[in-house]
Amino acid sequence: MFIQNAWYVIAMPEEVGREPMSRTVCGKRIVLFRTGDGAPAALNDECPHRRFPLSKGRVVGDTIECGYHGFRFDCTGACTHVPGTDTISPKLNTRAYPVVEKWNWVWVWPGDPALADPARIPDYHWNTEPGWAATGGLIELDCHYQLQSDNLLDLTHEAFVHKATIGNAAVAETPMTARAEGDVVHVDRIMRGIAPPPLFAKVRDFSGDIDRYQFVRFEPPANIWIDAKAYPAGTEDADRGMRWMVMNSITPSTAGTSLYFWSLSRCFVTDDRKLTELIHEQLYNTLIEDKVLLEEQQRVIANDDPTGAALIASACDAGNVYARRIVSRLIAEENGGSAQAAE
Amino acid sequence: MFIQNAWYVIAMPEEVGREPMSRTVCGKRIVLFRTGDGAPAALNDECPHRRFPLSKGRVVGDTIECGYHGFRFDCTGACTHVPGTDTISPKLNTRAYPVVEKWNWVWVWPGDPALADPARIPDYHWNTEPGWAATGGLIELDCHYQLQSDNLLDLTHEAFVHKATIGNAAVAETPMTARAEGDVVHVDRIMRGIAPPPLFAKVRDFSGDIDRYQFVRFEPPANIWIDAKAYPAGTEDADRGMRWMVMNSITPSTAGTSLYFWSLSRCFVTDDRKLTELIHEQLYNTLIEDKVLLEEQQRVIANDDPTGAALIASACDAGNVYARRIVSRLIAEENGGSAQAAE
Amino acid sequence: MFIQNAWYVIAMPEEVGREPMSRTVCGKRIVLFRTGDGAPAALNDECPHRRFPLSKGRVVGDTIECGYHGFRFDCTGACTHVPGTDTISPKLNTRAYPVVEKWNWVWVWPGDPALADPARIPDYHWNTEPGWAATGGLIELDCHYQLQSDNLLDLTHEAFVHKATIGNAAVAETPMTARAEGDVVHVDRIMRGIAPPPLFAKVRDFSGDIDRYQFVRFEPPANIWIDAKAYPAGTEDADRGMRWMVMNSITPSTAGTSLYFWSLSRCFVTDDRKLTELIHEQLYNTLIEDKVLLEEQQRVIANDDPTGAALIASACDAGNVYARRIVSRLIAEENGGSAQAAE
Repeated sequence: MFIQNAWYVIAMPEEVGREPMSRTVCGKRIVLFRTGDGAPAALNDECPHRRFPLSKGRVVGDTIECGYHGFRFDCTGACTHVPGTDTISPKLNTRAYPVVEKWNWVWVWPGDPALADPARIPDYHWNTEPGWAATGGLIELDCHYQLQSDNLLDLTHEAFVHKATIGNAAVAETPMTARAEGDVVHVDRIMRGIAPPPLFAKVRDFSGDIDRYQFVRFEPPANIWIDAKAYPAGTEDADRGMRWMVMNSITPSTAGTSLYFWSLSRCFVTDDRKLTELIHEQLYNTLIEDKVLLEEQQRVIANDDPTGAALIASACDAGNVYARRIVSRLIAEENGGSAQAAE
Repeated sequence: MFIQNAWYVIAMPEEVGREPMSRTVCGKRIVLFRTGDGAPAALNDECPHRRFPLSKGRVVGDTIECGYHGFRFDCTGACTHVPGTDTISPKLNTRAYPVVEKWNWVWVWPGDPALADPARIPDYHWNTEPGWAATGGLIELDCHYQLQSDNLLDLTHEAFVHKATIGNAAVAETPMTARAEGDVVHVDRIMRGIAPPPLFAKVRDFSGDIDRYQFVRFEPPANIWIDAKAYPAGTEDADRGMRWMVMNSITPSTAGTSLYFWSLSRCFVTDDRKLTELIHEQLYNTLIEDKVLLEEQQRVIANDDPTGAALIASACDAGNVYARRIVSRLIAEENGGSAQAAE
Repeated sequence: MFIQNAWYVIAMPEEVGREPMSRTVCGKRIVLFRTGDGAPAALNDECPHRRFPLSKGRVVGDTIECGYHGFRFDCTGACTHVPGTDTISPKLNTRAYPVVEKWNWVWVWPGDPALADPARIPDYHWNTEPGWAATGGLIELDCHYQLQSDNLLDLTHEAFVHKATIGNAAVAETPMTARAEGDVVHVDRIMRGIAPPPLFAKVRDFSGDIDRYQFVRFEPPANIWIDAKAYPAGTEDADRGMRWMVMNSITPSTAGTSLYFWSLSRCFVTDDRKLTELIHEQLYNTLIEDKVLLEEQQRVIANDDPTGAALIASACDAGNVYARRIVSRLIAEENGGSAQAAE
């Protein structure tokens, strides 16, 4: 079961156009397309007549036409045309989902449309902020979405999984602190006087040890910002250091599959396109290491604990534990039960 | 659940020979072979000893020999030989199915053999009629068989799915009439003064508009004849027009798979082999468009409505509704219940 | 359900090294590796922390390190290291399995470790016996392990499945005798004055008929020795004859998959390496014929009788019936019930 009353990233803006596309969010298959004025539209991806996927049809003006019998629907889900007849039953209307384009992502609200306030879209302004250079993409994960939020809330794994790019022994050896503030979780790790990991050394010519900061912020359902900073040890010198925000929004697709939207935005040497490409490629490789790992983990837990709810927590999992507790409580509240019942 | 007491097409005659073959009809795996005199035989495709598929064995005289331990069975299902022993337990006999070759198809009766009257084989005489030229084949569908009978009883879809061959806008715009007479359903559509669809224009050099007739006849479980005619508009001139019978017999294999036997027989320019090849290729391509569509539809309905029983009917589905009602009633009658209970 | 308190072959010695490997025995995923002194170790193939497979990690000294967060475990299953902390919860310990290397196979005991007496390892001394030349391997079977023990206890099938190597009509035509002695089953077949099967003719230049002996011995869960002898008819002349022991140990992996360890050891012309290669290749091909057949059989029985418990027994199945009865009784005893209940 997922939080339904929330904004989820469903696509990158350049993916949505006049050719319909299909994506599944919280178990709901949704067809996306743009109307004549370029606005995104999101409908249930089934023609209510014979349940053929609307995404296999075509966009005609501001409507989408089913590829089987030619029924047409506007962006509110109303059936506007049935071939060979002028009377259209209201039961032929289909469901429309609130959809908003913001922070260079397309967001959809699978729950009660009356609650879909765009002000509740998580703050990813670094994606579009002047003075910052962002790069990112989508990685499909064959695992429960919370395995990825667990993964990002305990970066200890960088020392073992990402040795080639962003990890080294210091990450594993330095303890974290974790705290929850309302529905937000913070996990901080400050490493002083450590060797720079390989990607850091490539990006900035660190001649010696560095101080490295990781400030991780979680907001439900599964939005994780990693505010990462590094400077020559003891300096906090921004001109010789680096700072980037790694932004992660994980959308549950089905119980065992997720859409992982990621983006890295940096505020140093922002006009160096080669550097952007290097960072993109290296971070992508790093995230694929996570994907391989998470899908292995999912295969193990699939039979008896498919959501990972029963995984054992060690000291490094304090952030995970807070985050899962928040999500469980929100699901319970949405379903009118107590947090206890939902966990 | 399927109608069991009915004749179903299981194979084309040229598929059945001295090499055993296996096919599944109404959930029953059946091995087919020909005895020494060329007659088709149909047995349960399991050796009763260790359940190894008999179709993996070989035909020896008028018997089939299991490929595992060499047990042999005649075309009545009697075990005639067990290696190393002279005493054969009657529990080693296996089930034989009534099988008949007629209208250039091989028919099998999965239900009570006592009721298997060959006179009940549906009338597909156009397949073998002098003065008619037939061509056809088998297409395996990964969908419930009734999705294909629904599809054939509402040809509106030709305007959207088969634009390259037999469909154009006139089909969608012209209403149909549907009626049930006993267990038979008729759906008629008469289009006057319309543009010829692409395949019609290829087959006959229509210089202007045509009158087009579609008379569709359904007989359970899933036999659909489409009597198709077209003439220069206002003429009914058979010499300049065309008529063909598209014959469709859909055999449920499993709940989600079907054997779709199709044949087109025409009564004009019957000795032009190139024309036969053209029609075969174009109709085959057309039916593959249906296959792709039906399998998409099946994937959507698989979880909550795998037989399509709960699909919403619009005006164009009047024929489908009659046909499904007849099938449901026959299943109920076969199982001693009321039609109400089976639907 | 499987017998848990038994030794099962899990690997060939050369498969186990300093790179961890994973195998599933009786439904239990087990990671295998060798410690610094070369001894095999076998642990539950899940890190108790996040359930990531330990087999995806690496061996460090005498421990295995999880590839996700770097937790380490020794060969008793004790967690010896958690990065970033000195306090290790005992709930982070994992399960170790008794493991022994004997008769050129690696054995594991999935049941109660207190009962794991190495003296109970079945006697496969021909694998390592001076004066004998052994060759063998592992074949993975996608079927319930008892289908293969059934297969080996009724060699009648050689006449139909293995005509190219070890079978001919005489095998099917000559009756067997079967008897149970405690938990051991014997099936004997003595064929006098028969034509030599193809592989026998290749291995020994038999100019005429032979006497062929098959003494099959079964010991639970699924150990089958075939003591095979052949001599020029009427002679029992060992110098012109042949004798080999075909040893088969079948390990249930999951309900529908098995690890089939096989070995053939002969006591004639033992120093002819080309002969060893010939025999290996021919027997391997023979066993693959079984694999293909058993997997067909499994597909047939999968839905309604996945273990083959309800298969019909004919005269040739006397050995199977004894063997399955013994296994059922042992499972029942292990689970504190009666044999009746388990069957």
